[in-house]
Amino acid sequence: MYILMATKGAFMADWQSIYEQTKNWTIEAGELIKQLMTSQITVETKSSAKDLVTNIDREIEQFLTNKIKQIYPEHVIIGEESEGHHVADMNGVVWIIDPIDGTTNFIQQKRNFAISIGIYENGIGKIGVIYDVMNDELYHCLQGNGSFCNATPLPPLKPVTIEESLVAINLSWLMKNPIASPDVMKKFIRKARGARSLGSATIQLAHVCAGILDAYITMNLNPWDFAAGKILLEEVGGTIHTFHGEEINLLGRNSIFAAKPGYQQQFIKQYL
Amino acid sequence: MYILMATKGAFMADWQSIYEQTKNWTIEAGELIKQLMTSQITVETKSSAKDLVTNIDREIEQFLTNKIKQIYPEHVIIGEESEGHHVADMNGVVWIIDPIDGTTNFIQQKRNFAISIGIYENGIGKIGVIYDVMNDELYHCLQGNGSFCNATPLPPLKPVTIEESLVAINLSWLMKNPIASPDVMKKFIRKARGARSLGSATIQLAHVCAGILDAYITMNLNPWDFAAGKILLEEVGGTIHTFHGEEINLLGRNSIFAAKPGYQQQFIKQYL
Repeated sequence: MYILMATKGAFMADWQSIYEQTKNWTIEAGELIKQLMTSQITVETKSSAKDLVTNIDREIEQFLTNKIKQIYPEHVIIGEESEGHHVADMNGVVWIIDPIDGTTNFIQQKRNFAISIGIYENGIGKIGVIYDVMNDELYHCLQGNGSFCNATPLPPLKPVTIEESLVAINLSWLMKNPIASPDVMKKFIRKARGARSLGSATIQLAHVCAGILDAYITMNLNPWDFAAGKILLEEVGGTIHTFHGEEINLLGRNSIFAAKPGYQQQFIKQYL
Repeated sequence: MYILMATKGAFMADWQSIYEQTKNWTIEAGELIKQLMTSQITVETKSSAKDLVTNIDREIEQFLTNKIKQIYPEHVIIGEESEGHHVADMNGVVWIIDPIDGTTNFIQQKRNFAISIGIYENGIGKIGVIYDVMNDELYHCLQGNGSFCNATPLPPLKPVTIEESLVAINLSWLMKNPIASPDVMKKFIRKARGARSLGSATIQLAHVCAGILDAYITMNLNPWDFAAGKILLEEVGGTIHTFHGEEINLLGRNSIFAAKPGYQQQFIKQYL
């Protein structure tokens, strides 16, 4: 009986501790990136000539997975560069990690890239951390306690009309694509106040959380691109679904429509 | 004779002094913006609902023009918000000023806006200053001495292929427009490594100077949007012309193709 309780206790997550550790490890990983980027960066291509990875992406993922495995050997890790691409379900505690989101920016711009960590328990978002390393902006949340940028609490998001909105969206929406009519998207873009494109999914999700953007619409993201942003955004009252308004599949690729409350409903009503 | 020489001397510009003053006034103006943006910002629309101006744009232009007029009453000033829209030629010393480029970003994002000052003498670019206020990045040059970001000299730009390039370009190029075929632009975009859009012409020009971007292509800029960037970019070996490769008219609206050396020739050969 005693053994059973102790075992059970060992598997109950102390979320406050995990939250502090995740933030600390992320900041440490950011420091490591800054050190490593002063030396030679080795660039390789992955699925296509535009899909780049560097030695530093791999090193940072290794750094984070080592930290997690050492303290939480029972947790599952899904990482962009090496691990967990074949995780079959969201049972237990699952860490979904992108060591460097915005690798092209990282290589050329030496800015506008981020570390992203989302932690789920049985499919429920518990902790979200996105670190815009060069701007030193750490977006973070523990479910139920609100989202923050560094020490500043992010206020609940307020609705905005499409006419007054600034949308992160890239040019592929105006080319032939399997998701939306380019003609419809042109009408939408003409109506919005402005369109932006930064080249980092996680920073753009963080910017929707902070009201720097009103919406972010993108065609094809992996779990490590949206796992943290989803938790952070829902914590401030934003919405995140597929382009057509369906629930996101946490284990697969999805179109993503992340926005202030009520915005996607406006969009669907007026344009779909 | 004595009087004639003194008069002549008074009209000969001391460019080193003007350079130091321009940088100092720009930094002071940046400080003023940061102070003013903590209080209420009054937003008005200009030519369209998307063309915004604030009380702070006007106040900063006034601050800068007062400084210039006090010390250089004989210089001509072309400013976005109030003055000099009807200057007929580039004779003498002409200051071309945008007090806040990226006003939409300024209002909503409280970042990604810049002060831009280009100074010409008889149509020749002498001094360029672009200040990304919130990132505290002051891009500056005195003709013949190279361009700098803060204290760091910017190295001469090297050629890059379209395949390896990161281009600042917005969605309007893929819509019906009077300048280029959207189908041709789609082919170009698919070939490039990535497309970005920040919402500030002057910062994107500064980023081409610094190699953060390889090119910036835009449909319709006013003199105050490109006056400083042109000088800064040519100083590091970049090129800036109209979309079709013609000389820019410093007193009018132009399409702009700003890029690393040789890039626009590649583009014209392959796509026009």
